[in-house]
Amino acid sequence: MGPDGFPTVGIVGGGQLARMMVQAAIPLGIHVRVLAERPEDSAARVAPAVDLGAPDDPEALVAFAGRCDVVTLDHELVDLEALETIIAAGGVVRPGPSTLEFAKDKLHQRIRFAAAGLPVPEYEPVADASSIERFAARLGWPVVAKAQRGGYDGRGVWVLADAASAHGLVEACASRGVSLLVEEFVPIANELAVLVARRPGGERVTYPVVETVQRDGICHEVIAPAPLDEAVTEEARRIGERVAEVTEAVGVIATELFWTQDGRVLVNEVATRPHNSGHFSIDGAATSQFENHLRAVLDWPLGPTDLRAPAVVMANLLGADSESLAPRLAETLREEPRVHPYLYGKGVRPGRKVGHVNALGDDPHETRERAVRAAARLTGRLVPGGTQ
Amino acid sequence: MGPDGFPTVGIVGGGQLARMMVQAAIPLGIHVRVLAERPEDSAARVAPAVDLGAPDDPEALVAFAGRCDVVTLDHELVDLEALETIIAAGGVVRPGPSTLEFAKDKLHQRIRFAAAGLPVPEYEPVADASSIERFAARLGWPVVAKAQRGGYDGRGVWVLADAASAHGLVEACASRGVSLLVEEFVPIANELAVLVARRPGGERVTYPVVETVQRDGICHEVIAPAPLDEAVTEEARRIGERVAEVTEAVGVIATELFWTQDGRVLVNEVATRPHNSGHFSIDGAATSQFENHLRAVLDWPLGPTDLRAPAVVMANLLGADSESLAPRLAETLREEPRVHPYLYGKGVRPGRKVGHVNALGDDPHETRERAVRAAARLTGRLVPGGTQ
Repeated sequence: MGPDGFPTVGIVGGGQLARMMVQAAIPLGIHVRVLAERPEDSAARVAPAVDLGAPDDPEALVAFAGRCDVVTLDHELVDLEALETIIAAGGVVRPGPSTLEFAKDKLHQRIRFAAAGLPVPEYEPVADASSIERFAARLGWPVVAKAQRGGYDGRGVWVLADAASAHGLVEACASRGVSLLVEEFVPIANELAVLVARRPGGERVTYPVVETVQRDGICHEVIAPAPLDEAVTEEARRIGERVAEVTEAVGVIATELFWTQDGRVLVNEVATRPHNSGHFSIDGAATSQFENHLRAVLDWPLGPTDLRAPAVVMANLLGADSESLAPRLAETLREEPRVHPYLYGKGVRPGRKVGHVNALGDDPHETRERAVRAAARLTGRLVPGGTQ
Repeated sequence: MGPDGFPTVGIVGGGQLARMMVQAAIPLGIHVRVLAERPEDSAARVAPAVDLGAPDDPEALVAFAGRCDVVTLDHELVDLEALETIIAAGGVVRPGPSTLEFAKDKLHQRIRFAAAGLPVPEYEPVADASSIERFAARLGWPVVAKAQRGGYDGRGVWVLADAASAHGLVEACASRGVSLLVEEFVPIANELAVLVARRPGGERVTYPVVETVQRDGICHEVIAPAPLDEAVTEEARRIGERVAEVTEAVGVIATELFWTQDGRVLVNEVATRPHNSGHFSIDGAATSQFENHLRAVLDWPLGPTDLRAPAVVMANLLGADSESLAPRLAETLREEPRVHPYLYGKGVRPGRKVGHVNALGDDPHETRERAVRAAARLTGRLVPGGTQ
């Protein structure tokens, strides 16, 4: 506790999620401290207190935790053993290592979720290439191979068309020490996401189910509420809430789901922290996911999650045509006054998530067009007066 | 400009207005630097870059300006000559000294506004006690004496009932070197405020006119939109916009107005910066006053100002019953989930503004009750389950 009686939340990782937590902490008087690798990291640029250190360096983590009342995470690339050390020394880490394991290890997640009766794609651990062949013989090619640990945003996922590509991949992964699992090729109709914020004692709130529009495994847009049949979104919501229980999440947990062409709702991935699919909530919900994450890890009462407009759309800023977003920002503020841009203060590289925009409106179609147009302007894909 | 092409805004003063500017800067990628007197100042606790120094220390101001692209202000208690020095050296100060003079010097403001045809209370400079007596002989007792410079929140304002009190005040002020003006005792029906954000070239946006509920010269609540006749609010709006022009404001300028029992709208005071009467805009308007202030001082396009709900009410947190607001916050979040608290990270003293809450709703009466109830809880004036 600070001398003012307010706690310090330590955030491991200096990415945009930490940056948006820093912003959300200010009105509530919460002190924040960020463990970042570099002073130019997204959150390190805006945080009032920054420790420099690597999230997989046990010494740095333990020293950092000593300066905080609660430690939470910007990403899952942390050293779980170091987190155990913090806990053994009386520190508080939320979410805890057993929850993080669901996000770090896809096979663990599939096994535990299947055991809990949660719907997951058909899957099997991969011992060798022939185990992929046997799996495909049962379900048909193509199949999907995934790295058990470490993949995200489409990385660590391969669609295998035949036995030859299976053999090639298994060989390449074996030489790099990467374990695989194999899954059915899911005939995706739509992708959904559900965010739940959960306190240590189990109290939780659930955000409206959203549709995530993905291209090449990368989320481009998020549409709230998901424009799908209520039976589907209700099922998705139920699954997201059950995932929060099974994982014993503390803070925000995001469950990404497939709605399949053959009428199933399946768990795709989980992230045990605020998530890109919840950025709409900053302007679009009564309480942002970042505020509810902080409140949850502090075991404070959670805020309402209902939408502030009939339609809320988030569009990611992916890469850009220039080194800096600055030249485009003023133009976008002028041409698209009805959006809220969030820039992450990150260097621009092709395809890199460097920000997002939120738009609120009455009509989902118009709101989505507005968000996408503003994102295109900011990234230089829409020239003034021109078309995309 | 930073290496990322984004400018640095320097804020002179470490109060809550600076704190809320720090928060508003994050999404837009704007760098901020705060000149604060103490590291525990409201904004210094959350800013990523803090210089320690006094706002009336020319050397500190000039050094500070050298690290910023634009200098703006948290309050008017700055050294105007030092600001002139910054400008002479090629620095940019927004608003400029000639605008600030309107807020610093009440007599200057009355003279210039009257000359511009703006409605102000009847006033006169005070040479000696007999000039107050002559003024009162014309308009009748009581009259209102005001310190020409330095007063705010009811300080520096005296209601004089008779010649004896006039003589006493003039004597006391003369010994302290305080110049006075005298004004008619305005029969106030309601108090209003209008916020305008204005760019250097004159482009501006105006927020909906609000009612400010004052007790003992201190603002307790702000109700948006002002629940008054449209002819009155239109007149107020017109005056606020004219004030922005006459003062050549850059950034937010707040005009506080009286709506009198005899049907006049009169200028009370102006603040050449974001203002307590505009805190409702953080949650309640399409663009917050803090964001529009930053955009205006950077000469970026301004954002829309329309309300996000039919009724928006702000209630100030004035003092509290404990050293810290922390014990009350969790309770308030639980009992009043439909408000947005803003804590300023300031030490608690009786009557001191230590935060505010915003509430949005459909019904002005219910929304106001909710905001006031939450503020009472946070300051310990409402005990759990009890009444005020």
